[in-house]
Amino acid sequence: MRSPVQNAELALLLEVTGTPKPGNVDRHREYDDLRFEHFMAGAVGSIPGLILAQNGAAVGRAFERSVVGMAEQSAGNTQFGALLLLVPLVRAASAHDDFSAETASEIARSTTVDDACDFYRAFEHVDVAVNDPPSGMDALDVRLGSRAEPTLRERELTLFDVMEQSAEIDGVAREWTQDFDRSFAAADWIEKNDGPVSERAADAFIRLLAAKPDTFIVKQHDEATATEVSERADKARAGAIDPAALAEEFIRRDINPGTTADLTAAALFVALERGLSV
Amino acid sequence: MRSPVQNAELALLLEVTGTPKPGNVDRHREYDDLRFEHFMAGAVGSIPGLILAQNGAAVGRAFERSVVGMAEQSAGNTQFGALLLLVPLVRAASAHDDFSAETASEIARSTTVDDACDFYRAFEHVDVAVNDPPSGMDALDVRLGSRAEPTLRERELTLFDVMEQSAEIDGVAREWTQDFDRSFAAADWIEKNDGPVSERAADAFIRLLAAKPDTFIVKQHDEATATEVSERADKARAGAIDPAALAEEFIRRDINPGTTADLTAAALFVALERGLSV
Repeated sequence: MRSPVQNAELALLLEVTGTPKPGNVDRHREYDDLRFEHFMAGAVGSIPGLILAQNGAAVGRAFERSVVGMAEQSAGNTQFGALLLLVPLVRAASAHDDFSAETASEIARSTTVDDACDFYRAFEHVDVAVNDPPSGMDALDVRLGSRAEPTLRERELTLFDVMEQSAEIDGVAREWTQDFDRSFAAADWIEKNDGPVSERAADAFIRLLAAKPDTFIVKQHDEATATEVSERADKARAGAIDPAALAEEFIRRDINPGTTADLTAAALFVALERGLSV
Repeated sequence: MRSPVQNAELALLLEVTGTPKPGNVDRHREYDDLRFEHFMAGAVGSIPGLILAQNGAAVGRAFERSVVGMAEQSAGNTQFGALLLLVPLVRAASAHDDFSAETASEIARSTTVDDACDFYRAFEHVDVAVNDPPSGMDALDVRLGSRAEPTLRERELTLFDVMEQSAEIDGVAREWTQDFDRSFAAADWIEKNDGPVSERAADAFIRLLAAKPDTFIVKQHDEATATEVSERADKARAGAIDPAALAEEFIRRDINPGTTADLTAAALFVALERGLSV
């Protein structure tokens, strides 16, 4: 039986294996400076951090370590958001016989100020695309890294609090505050589907993307682009657009629905933990 | 820094990522019942066995455990031969500051009768393509699994002895008895090459295949087919044949140079241990 760490690892690998996932790096498409092999190295690099989570280490610490390892390849950020979802999920799967959205949410809600500090520290290891913070929030810009620690401690902000503040503009943070609901829903789709798991992952990706604009696209482009992408993903899902053609176009336009890929990895983990076989 | 276990894991993943590797499953080609995703699951499944090797467990035991985990996917054997090379290499990389062909060979030569028994036991977990044993060797048919144990003990055969007996007909066993020379030579090629690592892996694969007939093809087809494949790989290497077309043809003819893929994985491990960056 695979351990939670192994399932997390396999989820990261199956996510990037699924194709076509329009705009994402996948088995058949890559960017010159962000290649399939970087995702392999990122996944393997994160193992020690994931082992910490499995062994019950604090979420912030395990996340920060997993990011350090993930970043040990030449392309920069490959799986920051996916790991931010997987670490509390691995903790929950290791700590509870009844792994569920509730137990995962419990782990997220019981994070501490120390976890928040370690989360900020993780940004020192890798260049992650972020927006400027809202007005009045400059002291909590994640780009400050550990320099934000005094503010976090003074305001007594836990990692869950930090996620709540970003939930509206970040799809990963939203999962933290909404009981990982989209991850668990997409796991259902994957389990109920049939055929190769990587194809089911690609289906779940398109369905997630069609249902909600990707917040990473909002950050890299704008709201209108993200909405357009979701509308076209919905058409691809309905068969009105060829998903492979859409994939080529999005890669060309540098439109990368990264948050939707993060959710897909989390969904794969949940499905594997619940017994999905490959 | 990646540990030997992480480098072994990444080597397994990069091996199957490299494309085109004519006849092999790779990122762009797969068989209906042996898919890319099965190699991902096989690689992840082998982690606990590889950790045993890293922690200094006996080679036979670590190998058998890695095979049990590798086989936890629905396609059967994906990386048996690759693990048979990686386990002693991981042991050597963990035990020695001066990781080299010599230190790896030392590990191989110091295996015991217990290691041989565990090696035979590994065949009980997965269906591996093997030939009938030579005449007079029926009592050592690997398909006997642990039922061969009394004979192994009576004849005092170590795992190294077992490898010596198969060295002529099995390219992996040959590596064991020849100081892993082809694995280390191919690691040199990968290191001296440039560009994406997965492309360098595919280059090394073609070069290995061109240099020597693949013993897995001999088992599955015959000597003549294996020789033809190597001659055509050599032409592909020289640019006289399109490797992608060759890949399509070999997949169609069910010609899978599996042993050459095993050597490629071992070469990638050696290169990663020596500092190859991805």
